[in-house]
Amino acid sequence: MSAFRWRDDAAASVGPLLVADRGDEVHRVRAYARAVWSCLVEPGDGVAGALIATLGPVHALQVAMSVAGGAAGAGVSREQLQQGRERWRPRLVAEAIAFALETAAGTGIHLICPEDDVWPSALDDLGPHAPVCLWVRGDPARLRQLDPAVAIVGARAASGYGEQIASEFAAALTGRGITVVSGAAYGIDGAAHRGALSAGGMTVALLAGGVDRPYPAGHSDLIDRIARTGAVIGELPCGNAPTKWRFLQRNRLIAALGSATVVVEAGARSGSLNTAGHAADLGRALAAVPGPVTSGSSAGCHRLLREFDARCVTTADEVAELLGMGNAQDGMLAGPWTGDDTRLADALSGRAWRDVDDLARRSGMAPDEIRSRLGLLALTGAVEGDGFRWRRAASRRTR
Amino acid sequence: MSAFRWRDDAAASVGPLLVADRGDEVHRVRAYARAVWSCLVEPGDGVAGALIATLGPVHALQVAMSVAGGAAGAGVSREQLQQGRERWRPRLVAEAIAFALETAAGTGIHLICPEDDVWPSALDDLGPHAPVCLWVRGDPARLRQLDPAVAIVGARAASGYGEQIASEFAAALTGRGITVVSGAAYGIDGAAHRGALSAGGMTVALLAGGVDRPYPAGHSDLIDRIARTGAVIGELPCGNAPTKWRFLQRNRLIAALGSATVVVEAGARSGSLNTAGHAADLGRALAAVPGPVTSGSSAGCHRLLREFDARCVTTADEVAELLGMGNAQDGMLAGPWTGDDTRLADALSGRAWRDVDDLARRSGMAPDEIRSRLGLLALTGAVEGDGFRWRRAASRRTR
Repeated sequence: MSAFRWRDDAAASVGPLLVADRGDEVHRVRAYARAVWSCLVEPGDGVAGALIATLGPVHALQVAMSVAGGAAGAGVSREQLQQGRERWRPRLVAEAIAFALETAAGTGIHLICPEDDVWPSALDDLGPHAPVCLWVRGDPARLRQLDPAVAIVGARAASGYGEQIASEFAAALTGRGITVVSGAAYGIDGAAHRGALSAGGMTVALLAGGVDRPYPAGHSDLIDRIARTGAVIGELPCGNAPTKWRFLQRNRLIAALGSATVVVEAGARSGSLNTAGHAADLGRALAAVPGPVTSGSSAGCHRLLREFDARCVTTADEVAELLGMGNAQDGMLAGPWTGDDTRLADALSGRAWRDVDDLARRSGMAPDEIRSRLGLLALTGAVEGDGFRWRRAASRRTR
Repeated sequence: MSAFRWRDDAAASVGPLLVADRGDEVHRVRAYARAVWSCLVEPGDGVAGALIATLGPVHALQVAMSVAGGAAGAGVSREQLQQGRERWRPRLVAEAIAFALETAAGTGIHLICPEDDVWPSALDDLGPHAPVCLWVRGDPARLRQLDPAVAIVGARAASGYGEQIASEFAAALTGRGITVVSGAAYGIDGAAHRGALSAGGMTVALLAGGVDRPYPAGHSDLIDRIARTGAVIGELPCGNAPTKWRFLQRNRLIAALGSATVVVEAGARSGSLNTAGHAADLGRALAAVPGPVTSGSSAGCHRLLREFDARCVTTADEVAELLGMGNAQDGMLAGPWTGDDTRLADALSGRAWRDVDDLARRSGMAPDEIRSRLGLLALTGAVEGDGFRWRRAASRRTR
């Protein structure tokens, strides 16, 4: 292993990875610096994020690689910078960085940077915790379709009920032009991706490791299918395995990319509650699908409804509504027929003819009021009468 | 049919109906006037309620029976009073009133008035729409056990799931000394009463007609059982059949008697949503039990959760909590293990021994930080090491 050293001419190596290599040396050098950064940091490293935001990726990397100094005006404290250097230095390994870039180039994986116009601006809401770059399998132009997007997530150990809902919601949402974002895991995630694909819709998978390593392995085929028509995205460079930390941080990307996050099924302590927490932190709409209270697979959804004010959603229309795209009727509580008409209808028979005194006794209403209401009801065809006695009209009787 | 006329000596006829006939002529006369009122009005007659509240039941009845005048200081407008007189007059039938009182006396039904100390004070929240009196089958002393009480209501066309939940909740709540109030209907209501009875708990049924007429007829045995250990209550005098209006008004009593109303299952337009509306109007806690979104029997519950801010309840503990009696843990979202410990744990192996540089590379953490955390983790027994290389401790590995 040899220590990584910056060489301007090495920047050319990222050319094939870029969306559109503009032949722009500055752009290439910046992208190269971000690719290197992505090898140094764990996801969500706020010190690196602040440094890059302030100095730009190239200067920030030079500051990071230097032994000391350089904190003035860098947006981070001297102490934070020093601690950062200690975190990053063990990964400044030339071979590891070269391997990540070569693997990406060799497998058609793209490097997407905030400077690119396909960069999903929703990630900017993560501030200094946004990814330094994205590694993408699939046509990066499709990232433009991430608005609007909904995150559909949930338990790996899902029930048939949960998988059915996830799949149906995903199919219906993509049918409305909404991209379905999820994590390619077993259970709800997989069902959501499959539902979107089966409807010919757009779906995007966020992986916790390098996108050259489909995870879980049992979903290699599914992930390949997603890459063919949608996109498979990770912030870790090629060769990196997912870890618990990376799963948790991957969840923040899923939450950030969706305008709303829908938890379809989740155990009481499911990892998808972590995604829900990120969505709430980011001010994204948070929704949960209820299920039987006797099912442990819905316990986490019910916690979200009880304790975290998640919106209860039962149809894809109600999910679309969270994005302001719904046509679900949010009508008033349409109670049964109430009021005096009900009292009068109770008193009327469908067979026997009754006079006003009889109706007054039966309904407890004043005769004058009964007469006026009978007149109105006769106009609507609800009652029939001869001016002295009334009964409910036949059309009403047969209902 | 002959017109009813007030006779002071007739008041003696209510003696056998009273909880404790105090030998108090004033009390008897008042109770008698309320019994007569209960024959004149439909449930919820606010003009009658205001008149009685202002003048007392006896004077109010005299005013009601007179042809004109008497509105000054009566708490209602002259016009309201006149309209009221027109509503009440058709029912001032001596035989009907006598029949109601005789039937009650003959079947052991009690007359309970707001002046009685067993009167459920929760009903006073209904203001002028409170019942003028209650007709009760069962020991009226049990009405004292209406605090605390929970209303458990729902669809007649309930599923096995809904009936199971209603029954389990009712059994568990009565086990905590909470009375279960419901409407004796088929489906959820019946399951709630049965659950309470099976646990030897207190349950109260509110009927929409006279309590001498069990409704529905198929629940005659159940209603008899409720009367034996709990109470069966109605505001209509004996001989009266339920009507749609009376069902809707009966629902307001159920909602008023429960400190919380729980809707277990309900179609999207179920009558139990009317009870829920009353509960909300009265400022009572409103809760709904979620179910599969694929089940029409839960659609009304989901509407309550979505549109009416009902509390999502999944256990009897969570219902008790609505009454401030719970011990359900309303804990923070306990996400998976997060933070630096997670990153370090990811980097540690359960088998291979790893040094700090290796762990730093794998975790992206600074070596110094790793050393200090390893020290703490070693103290808790989570890791084992020789000061140079570490791995996860055996106890942790086997988890």
